[in-house]
Amino acid sequence: MDEANHVTETVAAIVAAHRVGTMTPAQTVARSYQRIRDRGDPAIFISLRDEKDAIAEAARLAAKDPAQLPLCGVPVAVKDNIDAKGLPTTAACPAFSYVPSHDSTAIAKLRAAGAIIIGKTNLDQFATGLVGVRSPYGIPRNPLRDDLVPGGSSSGSAIAVSAGLVPLALGTDTAGSGRVPAMLNNIVGLKPSLGLISTAGLVPACRTLDCISVFSLTVDDAMTALQVLAGPDAADPFSRNRPLAGITAFPATLKLGVPKSGQLIFFGDRESEKAYGEACRRWQALGARLVEFDLEPFYETARLLYEGPWVAERYLVIRDLLASAPDAIHPVTREITAAGSRLTAAETFSALYRLQALRRVAERTFAECEAIVLPTAPTVYSTAQVLANPVELNSRLGTYTNFVNLLDLCGLALPAAMRPDGAPFGITLLAPAGHDAQLASIGRAFHADTRLPIGSNALPQPPLAAPPDTAHDEIPIAVVGAHLSGMALNGELTALDARLLEETVTAPDYKLYALDTTPPKPGMLRVEAGAGRAIRLELWAMSPAAFGTFVAAIPPPLSIGTIRLADGREAKGFIVEPVAIDRARDISAYGGWRAFMAEKAKA
Amino acid sequence: MDEANHVTETVAAIVAAHRVGTMTPAQTVARSYQRIRDRGDPAIFISLRDEKDAIAEAARLAAKDPAQLPLCGVPVAVKDNIDAKGLPTTAACPAFSYVPSHDSTAIAKLRAAGAIIIGKTNLDQFATGLVGVRSPYGIPRNPLRDDLVPGGSSSGSAIAVSAGLVPLALGTDTAGSGRVPAMLNNIVGLKPSLGLISTAGLVPACRTLDCISVFSLTVDDAMTALQVLAGPDAADPFSRNRPLAGITAFPATLKLGVPKSGQLIFFGDRESEKAYGEACRRWQALGARLVEFDLEPFYETARLLYEGPWVAERYLVIRDLLASAPDAIHPVTREITAAGSRLTAAETFSALYRLQALRRVAERTFAECEAIVLPTAPTVYSTAQVLANPVELNSRLGTYTNFVNLLDLCGLALPAAMRPDGAPFGITLLAPAGHDAQLASIGRAFHADTRLPIGSNALPQPPLAAPPDTAHDEIPIAVVGAHLSGMALNGELTALDARLLEETVTAPDYKLYALDTTPPKPGMLRVEAGAGRAIRLELWAMSPAAFGTFVAAIPPPLSIGTIRLADGREAKGFIVEPVAIDRARDISAYGGWRAFMAEKAKA
Repeated sequence: MDEANHVTETVAAIVAAHRVGTMTPAQTVARSYQRIRDRGDPAIFISLRDEKDAIAEAARLAAKDPAQLPLCGVPVAVKDNIDAKGLPTTAACPAFSYVPSHDSTAIAKLRAAGAIIIGKTNLDQFATGLVGVRSPYGIPRNPLRDDLVPGGSSSGSAIAVSAGLVPLALGTDTAGSGRVPAMLNNIVGLKPSLGLISTAGLVPACRTLDCISVFSLTVDDAMTALQVLAGPDAADPFSRNRPLAGITAFPATLKLGVPKSGQLIFFGDRESEKAYGEACRRWQALGARLVEFDLEPFYETARLLYEGPWVAERYLVIRDLLASAPDAIHPVTREITAAGSRLTAAETFSALYRLQALRRVAERTFAECEAIVLPTAPTVYSTAQVLANPVELNSRLGTYTNFVNLLDLCGLALPAAMRPDGAPFGITLLAPAGHDAQLASIGRAFHADTRLPIGSNALPQPPLAAPPDTAHDEIPIAVVGAHLSGMALNGELTALDARLLEETVTAPDYKLYALDTTPPKPGMLRVEAGAGRAIRLELWAMSPAAFGTFVAAIPPPLSIGTIRLADGREAKGFIVEPVAIDRARDISAYGGWRAFMAEKAKA
Repeated sequence: MDEANHVTETVAAIVAAHRVGTMTPAQTVARSYQRIRDRGDPAIFISLRDEKDAIAEAARLAAKDPAQLPLCGVPVAVKDNIDAKGLPTTAACPAFSYVPSHDSTAIAKLRAAGAIIIGKTNLDQFATGLVGVRSPYGIPRNPLRDDLVPGGSSSGSAIAVSAGLVPLALGTDTAGSGRVPAMLNNIVGLKPSLGLISTAGLVPACRTLDCISVFSLTVDDAMTALQVLAGPDAADPFSRNRPLAGITAFPATLKLGVPKSGQLIFFGDRESEKAYGEACRRWQALGARLVEFDLEPFYETARLLYEGPWVAERYLVIRDLLASAPDAIHPVTREITAAGSRLTAAETFSALYRLQALRRVAERTFAECEAIVLPTAPTVYSTAQVLANPVELNSRLGTYTNFVNLLDLCGLALPAAMRPDGAPFGITLLAPAGHDAQLASIGRAFHADTRLPIGSNALPQPPLAAPPDTAHDEIPIAVVGAHLSGMALNGELTALDARLLEETVTAPDYKLYALDTTPPKPGMLRVEAGAGRAIRLELWAMSPAAFGTFVAAIPPPLSIGTIRLADGREAKGFIVEPVAIDRARDISAYGGWRAFMAEKAKA
């Protein structure tokens, strides 16, 4: 790999290069095809788009404004159970294959953002499996250690990213298919909240549990893709209108759940166990507090998935094929799926009742922590091992993934370590649906801290970009008095889940007065520009609803207006009504409330 | 009925009488028992609580502060599928009967609010039916026209309220059991959003669709009960934490959905058809705009309920009894329920997929209107008719109720007319879950406008109490300038769904200045009390999130502080920073922005 390519491996770097013109989209796409040829593994892609066609589409991006295209010229590989116009959809079953007349919603959104679809990737047939060996299109080679399974069901997509063939790929995830292969390929696997990405144009596995997932080399790349892909879609009844927040700074306080002692299962794999322990210590070093939770209800949920009625959903997908051409189905897939025909409605409702109770238990777990941290998979297996024991070993790989979609959680699978035996180890962050951005905000810091190379080509991680100051819809508010950290009314902010962003000062346009209130408070008044003092303040951020509640409760003579900061920014903040400062003491010379109160305490 | 009783028939009147002492809870409870004896219908209650016991409990309320008890001394009848300690729960099946060791959550909440449980009422066995004739405990007589069915499944509870035996009763509602009997008894039936009232301690019908419902003589009484009953409950996995708003004023603009021409079914009943048309005209006269919607997807949902897998939920409830003592089950109930054993998991998931799509269609309907208005039932039937054709006529009564819980709607059944043949006619308001208070706010105005007597005793409706100014968590904001109705920035308020509450003036403590802004805006400054002018303003109300968003967008030099109103109230409102009015014109003499702008336009 030459030096120029070396620095343009991530989505962020590729888009930046296209924007400044150091590389063209056509060059980047051609590079992908060259790498696919160089890799020489026919089991990664089930179908590859005509190269000239892809390059021509990339060249046409020159007519557009790259600033408007968040994925300008990014080559993308797509799991072959997601419709992309111009390529057949096989779900890794030739007899099931069809040529879609439309792009799936997800692909249409990628293309609109400037992405170039390169081809369709291999998978465990009908997305049933976590191993990547259940496909008539062959077993793609794991690029990290070629005796290991690639992981599945999104095997080809994960390898395409890990091996550097493309910087971004779509997988799907019903019970771990977007996470297990991420771990086995040392890449990031983002399993979004159900309904966040439309599943219109996806071959279902279990329609009530399916989602499209994202593979990339970095968390930020995955979030860039998620921001393109997310959104409600009338064509998908399971789509949900969930606002997606943006990346934020690592929080000042963070509680992460870890299973109670003795509850984790590694199937005797000491290296995995050790790597998980190290990951937990890394979280602590990053400032997280680990709190124990009971993993048993999560295990019970996982058992519900495989012993319960959901396999009937898989049966519905291939019912016709099972009747007309059963031999066209992979024997393991056939055996698993046919069982779905024998389940009853009463069993289904019984399982739904139990699941509802388990969801409530999980909710209580997440009342005690922001997210939980688990191994992505308990161990790794070789292809030979899995072929000898296909169902049991597959099911072991799902130990920490199977329950996630049933409990309506979002997940982020992250590389955590390279083991001494050359196998990768990964962890997964899980939180209730809707917290995708929060997982990304903490996960990116963890991944950066590991300093692990990304993918399988010994590439160093790019430096972590500074996060924007506030989440998507958060409102920053400047506090100058009793709401400062540690002061009398600070609890009003924390009770509303406000986050401290930074400490800074106003423009030198303000006067500060000590009001005669209980508790003591200052009042800040704007005067002519430059005629006042710079006053120390803290910027906090909160949701619109919290901000509304906060403002509504502020008593006179204080109001919320716009404060000028020293660096030219503006923020909402406290202003006093002038009628209230007639007899108040001007304390501007202290430069802030904290200094004044400290002086008062001494006196 | 004597004069004193006449005025204390509603929950509101009874609680008021207990608070001022014109009646005691013990007298009220004794009156209930006397009326039950006078009515002489043994089919209304399956079990009645010992009278002395109930009176003793009522007497003990004297030791408590009645102001803290929203249902102080209110006698309540409870459908006999809801556990109340001290009385057996039969679900109208003696062989199923058990003695509960605890109150259901709903009953515990009623008792904590001062209600006195009187007895357990008859129902269609296992709450399966809309007729009230499927019970081994007899057919309670319809108090309005005794040839008519009482309606079901909550037959006894509806009659107990209609006949004035109690002012409040609990029913349940899975497919209309809380609404059809309300119509047939000329009372209010409130079917809350699923999960709003805990179902812990309820014998399930379809656990995924069941809810406890409220019968009362007025909408306000139903809301009083709902406020007591609502709330999350860890004992019920289907419980949801939904904030319940309060009653608000009838909205200035209201769009109500009515089915497209030709879609309504009355089974040839011209009186019902006519009464429905009159109800629609009444809504128009009240100020609502009627918009047509497509009822067909709602009908399709209803068919899904009876042809689909949900009957397997009913089967689960009585599976053991069906196996051990099938003859103990009502033959009609047995026939319906046994069919549930034959349904498959695949059929269940197929139906859940279709339901999900239908839910999305319904959502689009409710994007075009605040609620839809339908007949509660298309017609009425006599007991003789129903006994001769038990399944078909029952199913006809559910024409406009069966789809409601599947679509996760809340509903409010209201009396609408007394037909010339002496049969009652009613309408039901339906809206997406969470809009219970909104339905009540418009429904109470409709019911009052009908001037119908309440229940079956020719009682006049009490005068309608004035609604409080704002909903539960709404924040009022005073606007004095460009945000006034019809002015340049008023759209910022309406875009955030703000509601105009009233027009009023500030205390005489303010000065108003014309700022040099685009669009033109005033700035209002508080001066010494009494040293300024009273400035005209409008009070608007909006949600905390909308308020937060609104405040965050206000540019300097304006801020949001606290405004003193002429009548002593305070409200959030616009204040200007004094530094901005140095060269601004004092327009306080105009008394308001509108007068100043009108003057300016003339000039």
